[in-house]
Amino acid sequence: MKMASITIGEYLLKRLKELNIETIFGVPGDYNLPLLDLIEEDKDITWGNNTNELNAAYAADGYARIRGAGALVTTFGVGELSAINGVAGSFSEMLPVIHVVGTPITSSQLHKTLLHHSLGNGDFKVFAKMSSMITVASACLTHEKALEQIDHVIRTSFVRKQPGYIAIPLDLMKKQVELSEPFMDALQLAPPTSPPEIMQIALEKILELVKNATYPAIVVDGCILRHHLQKEANAFVIKSGFLTFAAPMGKGAIDESLPNFRGCYSGNVSLESIKREIEQADLLIELGSIKSDFNTGNFSYGLEKAKTIALHSFGTTVYYAEYPGVSMMDLLPLLTSRLPEKSCQLSFGPRGIVLPIDDSMQEITHNYLWNKVSEYIEPNSIVLGETGTAEFGLFNMKSTPNTTYISQ
Amino acid sequence: MKMASITIGEYLLKRLKELNIETIFGVPGDYNLPLLDLIEEDKDITWGNNTNELNAAYAADGYARIRGAGALVTTFGVGELSAINGVAGSFSEMLPVIHVVGTPITSSQLHKTLLHHSLGNGDFKVFAKMSSMITVASACLTHEKALEQIDHVIRTSFVRKQPGYIAIPLDLMKKQVELSEPFMDALQLAPPTSPPEIMQIALEKILELVKNATYPAIVVDGCILRHHLQKEANAFVIKSGFLTFAAPMGKGAIDESLPNFRGCYSGNVSLESIKREIEQADLLIELGSIKSDFNTGNFSYGLEKAKTIALHSFGTTVYYAEYPGVSMMDLLPLLTSRLPEKSCQLSFGPRGIVLPIDDSMQEITHNYLWNKVSEYIEPNSIVLGETGTAEFGLFNMKSTPNTTYISQ
Repeated sequence: MKMASITIGEYLLKRLKELNIETIFGVPGDYNLPLLDLIEEDKDITWGNNTNELNAAYAADGYARIRGAGALVTTFGVGELSAINGVAGSFSEMLPVIHVVGTPITSSQLHKTLLHHSLGNGDFKVFAKMSSMITVASACLTHEKALEQIDHVIRTSFVRKQPGYIAIPLDLMKKQVELSEPFMDALQLAPPTSPPEIMQIALEKILELVKNATYPAIVVDGCILRHHLQKEANAFVIKSGFLTFAAPMGKGAIDESLPNFRGCYSGNVSLESIKREIEQADLLIELGSIKSDFNTGNFSYGLEKAKTIALHSFGTTVYYAEYPGVSMMDLLPLLTSRLPEKSCQLSFGPRGIVLPIDDSMQEITHNYLWNKVSEYIEPNSIVLGETGTAEFGLFNMKSTPNTTYISQ
Repeated sequence: MKMASITIGEYLLKRLKELNIETIFGVPGDYNLPLLDLIEEDKDITWGNNTNELNAAYAADGYARIRGAGALVTTFGVGELSAINGVAGSFSEMLPVIHVVGTPITSSQLHKTLLHHSLGNGDFKVFAKMSSMITVASACLTHEKALEQIDHVIRTSFVRKQPGYIAIPLDLMKKQVELSEPFMDALQLAPPTSPPEIMQIALEKILELVKNATYPAIVVDGCILRHHLQKEANAFVIKSGFLTFAAPMGKGAIDESLPNFRGCYSGNVSLESIKREIEQADLLIELGSIKSDFNTGNFSYGLEKAKTIALHSFGTTVYYAEYPGVSMMDLLPLLTSRLPEKSCQLSFGPRGIVLPIDDSMQEITHNYLWNKVSEYIEPNSIVLGETGTAEFGLFNMKSTPNTTYISQ
């Protein structure tokens, strides 16, 4: 039986579509045109057609936040370097964005020809080296290994939620290759399974600490959104009944109408009442935390490691003990199911809120502005808070149902 | 006697001014503000105040083309990465641009704090590593070595005509340091001297070949402009009387009204008559050549190495022999002085020119357009030819006196 064949470019598009990608962003250039032909011919893909590469990178970043993964196509050197800042942003923000770069034909690279867009020193790998520093996996495709390389980059990027880089030479885009067994099936995109014995030990330890705590609290952060664990996190918050706070980057993950949701915590930048509440806790459970300065009120995060359980994407810590490989994707549902119903019955005072709007005021104050803005936001919106003032305004804004809040 | 003192930031500005820099381009950011204070206070420096970092990098590139050196200031991470594409361009185009980046305070970097603009993995050196791949010298300043580091980057960049990178932490910008002897004097900016014995041997060899040639020709290229050797190159062209051609990137270096200037040569993209003339030559002398695809008519440059003498910035080749370290800065004036007056009396036919404008035509043809455009260019202009169509139009455009032509 003759084996099925496919072009390397079509194979790449097939894998991107498996990530739920329907729009590929980017800018045309001399070194990516045959790939753009394939994108144009593919009826399931729309070409984003951006006006510059930095825009394309940020568009792919935004697409990945909402849809789970994003992709962009640029051209060798002068194209890809304009996108690199946006891709580095996706790296630090934990977003799987696949950066595909069209490069000179394989033989020109081997012979170190002095092509346009190159640095003029015969080094065709320098841009790939730069990108490898801000991606979790990268590959310069070869004829022999292309399908394997594509799968490695896409799988790693998707599982680790960080960008991947694929350089594809002009001559390989429409090159036919045989489509053998492993490449015909859908790509395996599940994260690695947590080691069961270690997870069991961590789970029992956590249940014991929860049982003995008198004032446990939960902080929900950005990685819950990255791994699409909103449902699992809300189930945990509801069943536990623990006081629950959102870190700025986690805002929107938890239903803010739940009675035990108390507001946004960001160290000294928080409302005084929220700060007081959380800092009384004798046990803290962090879900998917990202501890940058802007996400923690410039490190004034007054939470002690000695009373913190942290569930991360690929590891768990209980106080000072580390349980490597124990993922919140596995542990969180298990923890919820083992938790006694309403294990904790704290009496909540009224929720800490910002001052109400004083309509008799003649000035537009920050309190007025950010309170008022929330009235205009309709359900299912996406709200972007620019880093700095707008982000701080967003923290305590009344949340609209099914709305995504983005600040970084 | 008490030693004079200076802040590290002021010292950096003092050195940049020694490069004839009066405008520093860039964009403000959290990590460079104290340095911008110093720029504002310095009455001899104007702040370029660009709207984004990529613009700043290209502005500094243009400034370096005209003034000899350029500088820009950006902020750590998200700022500098937006400039990196422009700096890479200056690297391949051989322009000394100093990229100064304001970074987090030294202690935060040592403690791997999770600051904004960082990748979130505690690696504060990753952006410097990326920049080191597209600069000829780079340094992350330390309190102890700052002045030495600044001098090294600025000197190397200026001498090699490629960009340099200086990362200066927030806490060092206004830090006072002692100004000891070597740092008080003006920076030594002369290129390294050519080894005299090797240069002598190369010179005699070249004179012998010139004497025996029946049809020698000169090709003047971009590095003549980079090293500001227009005067020396014109003297050589005048005294030798050899047929002289400009490579596209060398256009404007030679006075096109000289009788032995024959036009622009770029392989198969040249006018047929020019191509015929140069390919008859039995000896070619290349001055400061840059052999990229766009500069050589996609490598259709029909000139054989076996009859080519190439004078480069930091080396000379005579046919297949290399004379490393023999610089055209030293060799070219020497060669001119040793050359017999009008050593070669070739009879030139009429110069190859483009077709004259046919005013009766109803269409605007390329021939019409590029011929016509040159009529509008006033002396002392700067003409930029966008890579591609406009660049090809520029090749054969009638040159205006004292005008700089830029294509890349």
